[in-house]
Parts: sequence; C-alpha cells; structure tokens
Amino acid sequence: MSTLVLKFGGTSMADPARIRKAAEKVAAEVKRGHKVVVAVSAMAGVTNQLVEYCRAIAEIYDPSEYDVVAASGEQVTSGLMAMALQQLGVEAESLQGWQIPITTTSAHEKARIDNIDTEKLKSYFKRKVVPVVPGFQGVTRDGRITTLGRGGSDTSAVALAAALKADRCDIYTDVDGVYTSDPRLVKKARKIPSIAYEEMLELASLGAKILQTRSVELAMNYNVPVQVLSSFGDAVGSDMPGTLLKAEDEMMEKQLVTGLAHSRDEAKITLTAMADRPGISAAVFGPLAEANINVDMIVQGASQDGDAADMTFTVPRADLPRTLEALNKNQDKIGFKRIISSADVAKVSVVGVGMRSHAGVAQMMFKALADKGINIQAIATSEIKISVLIEESYTELALRSLHKVYGLDS
Amino acid sequence: MSTLVLKFGGTSMADPARIRKAAEKVAAEVKRGHKVVVAVSAMAGVTNQLVEYCRAIAEIYDPSEYDVVAASGEQVTSGLMAMALQQLGVEAESLQGWQIPITTTSAHEKARIDNIDTEKLKSYFKRKVVPVVPGFQGVTRDGRITTLGRGGSDTSAVALAAALKADRCDIYTDVDGVYTSDPRLVKKARKIPSIAYEEMLELASLGAKILQTRSVELAMNYNVPVQVLSSFGDAVGSDMPGTLLKAEDEMMEKQLVTGLAHSRDEAKITLTAMADRPGISAAVFGPLAEANINVDMIVQGASQDGDAADMTFTVPRADLPRTLEALNKNQDKIGFKRIISSADVAKVSVVGVGMRSHAGVAQMMFKALADKGINIQAIATSEIKISVLIEESYTELALRSLHKVYGLDS
Repeated sequence: MSTLVLKFGGTSMADPARIRKAAEKVAAEVKRGHKVVVAVSAMAGVTNQLVEYCRAIAEIYDPSEYDVVAASGEQVTSGLMAMALQQLGVEAESLQGWQIPITTTSAHEKARIDNIDTEKLKSYFKRKVVPVVPGFQGVTRDGRITTLGRGGSDTSAVALAAALKADRCDIYTDVDGVYTSDPRLVKKARKIPSIAYEEMLELASLGAKILQTRSVELAMNYNVPVQVLSSFGDAVGSDMPGTLLKAEDEMMEKQLVTGLAHSRDEAKITLTAMADRPGISAAVFGPLAEANINVDMIVQGASQDGDAADMTFTVPRADLPRTLEALNKNQDKIGFKRIISSADVAKVSVVGVGMRSHAGVAQMMFKALADKGINIQAIATSEIKISVLIEESYTELALRSLHKVYGLDS
Repeated sequence: MSTLVLKFGGTSMADPARIRKAAEKVAAEVKRGHKVVVAVSAMAGVTNQLVEYCRAIAEIYDPSEYDVVAASGEQVTSGLMAMALQQLGVEAESLQGWQIPITTTSAHEKARIDNIDTEKLKSYFKRKVVPVVPGFQGVTRDGRITTLGRGGSDTSAVALAAALKADRCDIYTDVDGVYTSDPRLVKKARKIPSIAYEEMLELASLGAKILQTRSVELAMNYNVPVQVLSSFGDAVGSDMPGTLLKAEDEMMEKQLVTGLAHSRDEAKITLTAMADRPGISAAVFGPLAEANINVDMIVQGASQDGDAADMTFTVPRADLPRTLEALNKNQDKIGFKRIISSADVAKVSVVGVGMRSHAGVAQMMFKALADKGINIQAIATSEIKISVLIEESYTELALRSLHKVYGLDS
C-alpha cells in the first residue's frame, strides 16, 4: 500500500466526460489499496478566459484580486472531481487551498509554497475519504487567496507529495512520457522509462514543455519520485506506463546520453573586430541585461575583420530586433566593427548524467555532425549536457544521427 | 453619511464592460461620502453553466460539492469588481464568504444565514476600503462552502445590510423598479416610489419576479430599507430613482391599492357531485400533497350534476397532467362524478395595505369586472390582497379596468 498524489492537467479536466475518465483512474488506484490525494488543474482554456476578464477590467490589475479570480478555475474542477469519484463509489471531498491550508508567500500571482499542513489530509486517509485538492492555489498567513503562477498545478502536486512523504506523484497529462527525442522529427525516438531529475531539468529548460521546471526542482530537492504519464490510455500510474523522474543515484544503469533536445527559438549575433580590453563583455551584455534579454551561448574567436577578436552569442529569436537596436545604440561604447545576425539557427543538445564519468561524449557528437557535413557555429556545455548551434535546416538530420550514435535507436 | 449595501445582479455583471459600469455607480456613492459594501452575483449564465457541469458528472450529485462549484461564479465577479473599483481610484478588496465569515446552516444548496461577523467589514470602513462580497455564498461552522439557493444574492445583500444596520440596501437589477402593473400589458402602469414589505411579498409570490421572496421577508424582519433600481441608467441609489421597500407604518400615505399582479401559470379543476361528508377535502388534497402539487384557490359550490356540491381549485399549469392522474387514480376513494379541467384561466390580483382599514375594496373589483362582462370563476383573499380567477383572454382588459378604477392611472 503506497501513498500517491495523482495530478490531472487541464486537458484531462477539459469537460465532464474527461473528468469522469480521470476519476476512473483514481478509483482504480484506490481499489488497489493505495492512499490517494488528487490534485487538479482548471478545465483547459478556463484560466486563459479568467485572465482575459482581468485584462479587460484593468490593464494593470491588482495581483491579489487576480488570484481570487484565477483560483476559481481549480475550485470548480475540484468539486466536479469529488462528485465524479463519489459517483464511482469512492468517498471523496474537495479541499481548497485555504481549507488545508497550503500556506504560501504573499507574492501574489507567483506565490511560493511555505508549508502544507498534512494533518487534515491524513485524517481523510483514516476516514478512507479521498481529498481532492485544487492545484495552483494557496493562501497567505493572513488568509488571502494566492496562486503559484502558470503551470503551478504541477508544483502543487509535487509539494503535496513531498509534505506527505508520498511514494510517488503521478502527473497525468496529454503525453505518455518523456522521449529520447521529439518523435515528430525522429521516428526511432523511444519513451524513456526513467530519468534523473537533473536530466529532466536540462531537457525542460531546453524546450521539452512537459513539466513546469519549478516542479522538477522541488521534486529533486525533496527526492519525490514523479511519473509523467498519459491520461488518455487505460493504464494507471501503478502500472508504471510513463517516465519516472528520480534521483541520479537511484538510477540502476546510467546511460551515457538519456535524451536529445532541440530548440528553434534561437538567433545568432556576431560582433566583429572587437577591442581586446578588460570589461568588454560587460560592455556588450550590460545593455542587453537592461533590456531584459537573455543571452545563452557565447563564443569568442579570431576576427573575420582584421586582428581583433569576434564575439558570437545567441538570444531568443523573438528578441532579435530589440537586441540589434540595443547593440547599435551602444556601438561606440562597446567598440565593434560590424553586426552579423542570423535567425537561421537551431540548438541541438545531448543530455545525460552518464557524461559526468565518461570522457569523449562531446567528441562523439562533433564527429557525428562532421560526418554529415554539419558545421558547428557555437558550443555550450554543462556537466550533463552539450549543446551545439547549427544551421536550422540540419536540425532533423543532426537529431537522427546523434540518436543513432548514442545508442538511443535500439 | 450613510452606510449602504449595493448589490449588482447577473445582468449587471454580465461582462467586463458592465462590471466597469457598475463600479462607476459604487464610486459615485463613495464620492458622496457613504460607507459602502458591494455584493455581487455571478456573471449572467455562469451559474447555469456550472450546474450543467454538475448534472453531467452525476445525476444525483453531492450538494456540498455542488456548493464548491457554484460558489466560484461569485468569487470571479467579486475579484473583478474589486479591480474595477481600484481602476477608478477607489480602494477595494474582495472578501469571500469564508473570509468574513458569513456563517450558514449546513443545508447545502439551500443554506440559511446564521450570522455575519461585521468586525472585519467595519475595519474596512475604517481603512476606507470598500469590501466586495460575493453574494449567494456562505460557510458552515466547520469551514465547508455553502450556497443559499438560486437568487440567494439578494438575500446575502439584505443580510449584510441587516448585520451592519445599514441605512439602505440598493438592489441594482435589469428593471428600474416595481410597477403598479405589468407595463407590457397596461400602458398607464407607473413605477411605485415606495411599497410596504407585505405588499412586495404578495406581488413577488404572485409572479412579479423582481426580488427573491426570502430577501423581502428578511428585509421585513430586520426592517431594512431596500431599493430596487436599474443598473442601466445614470442615476445612483442615493438619487432614489427606484422603488423603496419599507415598513407599512413608515408609509406616509397608504394607497388603497398599490399594485396589480397577474399570473397565467394557472389551471382550474372542478370535481362535480362530490359526496358531502367530513374529510372530503383531505381525500381530495391528500393525494395532491403527496405528489408535491401546490393547490391554490379553492371554491365549493352548488353542483352542476345534481344535488351534491362541486369543488373547484387551481394548480400550477405545468402540474395539470399529474394532477388529473392523481385524482383519477383516487376517484373511488374521493367520490366525485366528473373532472372538468381548464388551462384557459388567469389569476388577477389587487394588492394594498390600505385594504386593512377600508371596506369595499373587493366590491369595487367585482363591479369593475362585471361592468366589462368578465366572469369571476374563483376568489381568494388575504388581509392585503384580493385575487380572482378569470378567463385568460380577459387578462389585459381586467388589468386595465382595475388600474383605472383604483386610481393607479393618474
């Protein structure tokens, strides 16, 4: 008998029929004898509608009243889910954030969870009643409603699991797990049975939009096993059909590379013939930081224009015009000859905790790309990740080659 | 400086533009120096949508979870109204039922208010912050969300006014007051500036669907002046543009007849040649009470079929088939010869507290109808009301004649 937190996302709560389907999964776990807490998102689209109302009332609205409005979406689904469970013969009761309570900071619209009182939840276990908790919601110490920011329901679920020392947190969503690469681009992509938190963080921040990054960090900090699985099939969490996130040291066999990520959301900028003097980096990136533009990969090298060095870096593609404007405005202060920019680039990354203990992973990547005639325009690495910038049109070819080279095809 | 409760119904909250318009009325009252509490309904249509979700989940649903779902509609508008007030420079904050708290019985879906803690509300007055309270909502002593039943927002508003000993409760709605008769039928119908609670109760129960009956009873019990007024025009409550409900003994001049009501929602049934024996009424109305059918006007008279008496009574038109079924099934037990039924009837009523002290009011009505050749099929009276049943096609003619006879045209 395990303690489980089962979380259902917006597409799993989209309408009464989907809610009934989700309730069947909960009922199946209860029947197997597990202690279950359910966490729910709002119906797909509802939160957007509520945000629209707020924006129509006031361009700059009071975040604490936004929270009152936005939190209502999960209140609705928590009540409906409790009804659906009762209909299946499972005793259930909804518990709003203030009723538990889930205490948060008072940073409205993006509150952080301070504490979850587990006493009431545990009393529900004793009475064999399933508590249904709205995700996304909390309450400040002085009793005002808060929300955790978009996608916050994942965080609520993991926090509940951490507070209850649950055996697992199952996140039911519209994908059936984490894949070795994007199956739309790489036919041989396979579902990963288990993945380390750190790998998931790298994949998440690299563009795999499955779990809110914050919820993965929280799971890692509290060592909560989290399973990502589909709410559409017939399998339930205890059948372990999805991808399980766990601690690196609990991975039986560490793969050299666990998965590939890619992002087309990049633009490349090269400043040529830069003066080679101290403080030059600050001169370049200061104005960009002020404009709230995130710089990612940075490379310095021999100049295309004479003796001085060139500097190449990437920014989000949507920020390219603003970046060029900020740089041009500061040309004299920075000191460069030309700006060369291109949006025709993609970032491809290999991720795996096995890299920590294996040399040569990067070399395999560079060789595989060279064999296909793909030029590497920039490189960035972390302990468990190597990213390269390439011409966008080579994205699929690069992913397929790397998928094969790192043994992910089999 | 007065203490006012301003309540806005669903059509006044229908969309962000309407909410902004309602907020302007609140702001105008605040500007005049009044202490204001705002009570809001859900956006028009939202509660129906939420009820539909519940019904789609379970035919017989848990009323306490229904309350969790249904209460969310007013939560949304309370937050939006607070934002809209802030946008106009008025300090405002939403307060849910559980935050005040508004304590109710635990009869979910139709809870009754036990107590409203006014301490927090008064602290808002001191800080010059307008509390925006969702109507319809409450909380049980053990912290579960409740709702007061459909139309319960009026009751919330009046209860808030009673608890705060407010000078007036303004109910903003989609009509601009209570009329001497239905203006669609009687062109000369006029808005009534003030009306006694008892008169409003008779009018409300007779079919004028302006205020929830329960809220009028509550206003009467606590002697809360209630103004019904339109949220569409430019006037605000303190201009007294609507109809004011107040105690009979505060009416300066008592009209003989204050207004006329009519209802086409009636059906007439006559049982002929009934045995004249004790217990006969119980034999007739027992089966109807069991079938939950409300019997209204009852007349006994000489029979159309021989010596024994006939009995005539009315039931809601929608219940006619079920009524006939129940009577036919019990024909032997009741003992009657024939059933004659007709849905071609209307009930026309004159209402006025002045009747208490004036004889001849009924006689004026009977004569006026006789002058127009309108046959009276049944009569029912209370201290302040006379109702007659007539052929439906004469409804307009009857209303117009009575409107003139009782001096309401001028």
